[in-house]
Amino acid sequence: MGLPWERIFAGSEQRLKSSAIRDLLAVTAQPDVISFAGGLPAPELFPVDGIRESFERVMRAEGAAALQYGPTEGHMPLRAFLAERLSMRGVKASPEEILITTGSQQALGLLGTVLLPRGSSVLIEAPSYVGALQAFTLHEPRYLPIRMDSEGIVVEDARQVLKSASVTPAFAYTVATFQNPSGVTMSLERRTGLLALSREFDLPLIEDDPYGDLRFSGAAVPAFRALDGGDDAVYLGTFSKTLAPGLRLGYVVAPRALISRLVLAKQAADLHTDSLAQRAVLDFCQHNDLAAHVAELCAVYRRRRDAMLSALRQYMPSSCSWTEPDGGLFTWVTLPEHVNTTELLREAVERKVAFVPGNAFFTDGSGGNTMRLNFSHPSPEKIEEGVRRLGELVTQRLSNVDQGSTFELAGSESR
Amino acid sequence: MGLPWERIFAGSEQRLKSSAIRDLLAVTAQPDVISFAGGLPAPELFPVDGIRESFERVMRAEGAAALQYGPTEGHMPLRAFLAERLSMRGVKASPEEILITTGSQQALGLLGTVLLPRGSSVLIEAPSYVGALQAFTLHEPRYLPIRMDSEGIVVEDARQVLKSASVTPAFAYTVATFQNPSGVTMSLERRTGLLALSREFDLPLIEDDPYGDLRFSGAAVPAFRALDGGDDAVYLGTFSKTLAPGLRLGYVVAPRALISRLVLAKQAADLHTDSLAQRAVLDFCQHNDLAAHVAELCAVYRRRRDAMLSALRQYMPSSCSWTEPDGGLFTWVTLPEHVNTTELLREAVERKVAFVPGNAFFTDGSGGNTMRLNFSHPSPEKIEEGVRRLGELVTQRLSNVDQGSTFELAGSESR
Repeated sequence: MGLPWERIFAGSEQRLKSSAIRDLLAVTAQPDVISFAGGLPAPELFPVDGIRESFERVMRAEGAAALQYGPTEGHMPLRAFLAERLSMRGVKASPEEILITTGSQQALGLLGTVLLPRGSSVLIEAPSYVGALQAFTLHEPRYLPIRMDSEGIVVEDARQVLKSASVTPAFAYTVATFQNPSGVTMSLERRTGLLALSREFDLPLIEDDPYGDLRFSGAAVPAFRALDGGDDAVYLGTFSKTLAPGLRLGYVVAPRALISRLVLAKQAADLHTDSLAQRAVLDFCQHNDLAAHVAELCAVYRRRRDAMLSALRQYMPSSCSWTEPDGGLFTWVTLPEHVNTTELLREAVERKVAFVPGNAFFTDGSGGNTMRLNFSHPSPEKIEEGVRRLGELVTQRLSNVDQGSTFELAGSESR
Repeated sequence: MGLPWERIFAGSEQRLKSSAIRDLLAVTAQPDVISFAGGLPAPELFPVDGIRESFERVMRAEGAAALQYGPTEGHMPLRAFLAERLSMRGVKASPEEILITTGSQQALGLLGTVLLPRGSSVLIEAPSYVGALQAFTLHEPRYLPIRMDSEGIVVEDARQVLKSASVTPAFAYTVATFQNPSGVTMSLERRTGLLALSREFDLPLIEDDPYGDLRFSGAAVPAFRALDGGDDAVYLGTFSKTLAPGLRLGYVVAPRALISRLVLAKQAADLHTDSLAQRAVLDFCQHNDLAAHVAELCAVYRRRRDAMLSALRQYMPSSCSWTEPDGGLFTWVTLPEHVNTTELLREAVERKVAFVPGNAFFTDGSGGNTMRLNFSHPSPEKIEEGVRRLGELVTQRLSNVDQGSTFELAGSESR
């Protein structure tokens, strides 16, 4: 009787793929599961009172304006504030080069809409942020995944790919600092190398930087837009990891020619971002010390990272390796090549511990022996207990088999 | 030195078109211009105190949850509330058939993403909501515009178009009640006729209903999902016109098979809609009488509509016609065929009055002699003065020319 929806949807399956992380989070939502699967900030650290007071103040001072339609580009005082704050960190940005987005996920979606006409290709890190892959895949690009090591993307590999490509990719996408999923930070040398490639091949460069402020150790590495010749690099930022993700407030910094196209795409996407949330977050930043709050976050997350690395050393077999991130939310574990972490996950969930199989972050089916572990959300005690359970499981799996360890993030030597 | 952005964008111009309304709003933002150009609710009627109190209550009761990532589908208690409220109006909806969106503009964008693969066509009203056209045009569909009269879309014309189409269009899109831009409401007879076509041709039907609650006169006409056989119709609703547009809170009701695809598209678009705004609006609805608030809005908007219709009768030449809407925000004026309202606008702005040239709402270049007038935002006094200025201008324009009047919305007899 009804409409033949399945027939109507035929052909859209490739473009619209469910995220493995998402389906998994549903399974691991039971409270007795220790979950390293999500990417959630620690909610006990949200500055709830300060944010409540900011909403209160804004509603009293400019309630009607905060409830009315607003400009697609975003609330100008917030754009001006961000321009100043970014400039202090060396990231070149005028207010007119900033577009406020509904979380930085929206910036990824808009960039896909504007920069990925039919038949495009995209240069990505392998592994890469799965939400970006989802946004780009709507436009069915060809992916050109580039190998990473502990210094980030291997620039020489990127050069070879660019040289042999028949057309220049639409852009290169990188989470250069405390990468999701790997936790790796691209070194300054690699950054200047990638930027040189960008200029040599007229290749737009998109840097997604949700985690850069969450540094616990080591020295800061400049964003591409803070480097000489980086004026054309696109920079994505967000309040999701430093303040609160629920408000969906992100931004993109880009040359004006690109901003004007992104604005048109955003008009079609949601007209503009929540007028009240934009004003409240600006008010919060004006009445509170955001840097001090971020320092608090870093202190807590550092302890959780340390708890995780220490537990990995204690409980994981020596044939496993993992990254040691200087910040962010994630570490990345590589198991011996024959272990399939998607299969392992079922047993892990039976033991009440969860992670994301690394395969989800690759576009070429690789990474089957890897996993992403989140350390920002569980307490240090839960982290130790969860890694203990994981280590026990992996040890049992390996007990009857003899194998060597792999060092590359993707375990790609085995292909 | 920089990247060749213009070359990079080559080919995207057709997909990303600037909205005439938007460019215009910039021009008419000066405070001394009486603007009938926008589609803004009256900000003096926003229930600022009630909304402030709701944000305060939610932040105190569940601040951490309201600031954390949330489900893509939306906050379940809000979905359940909407399901119940819609069911009371006869619109069939379970919570699982509802997806919360970042304004109903986002629902239009997501529907385009899911339902408009390459080479699609779309059946639309002529004229049609320009924001929907922007969202759909990203996917470069072929438009099949159907003539409207005072009862809405002419179903027999739609039947002829469907019969002669080589492939069934991806969907039909209608703002059936107090249409933007025309103010026309589709009659019950036309609705049942269109629904029958939908079932006969397996044509998905999308009803966008931002204005339905704002009825000042006449009897309510049921939504498609409230009609027999309307279970597969898609229904878009929003809090933008009944509560506040700045919070960007809308929703789409659809069969589960479609909701699950829209959820995947929304994951890629912005992960989820503002967790705090969803909770605050639900809290507002639980602690306040939204129906009473809407009744207040209707009383004020009715006076403004009456002021506009009365001024049109007083000041416009008899060769002009206009719609007399029973609700919503807009009326639609048709001038003699030879008058170009885009040209007229320049002179109008010199006289400090603005409107939207009707041409923007057509996909085939027609409607050049039409204009959309908004009556919800200016006061009755401004409305009278603004229409007086417009009437004077039109009268001068016509004074030297002899011509007849047109009755169709599009003036399409002249093509």
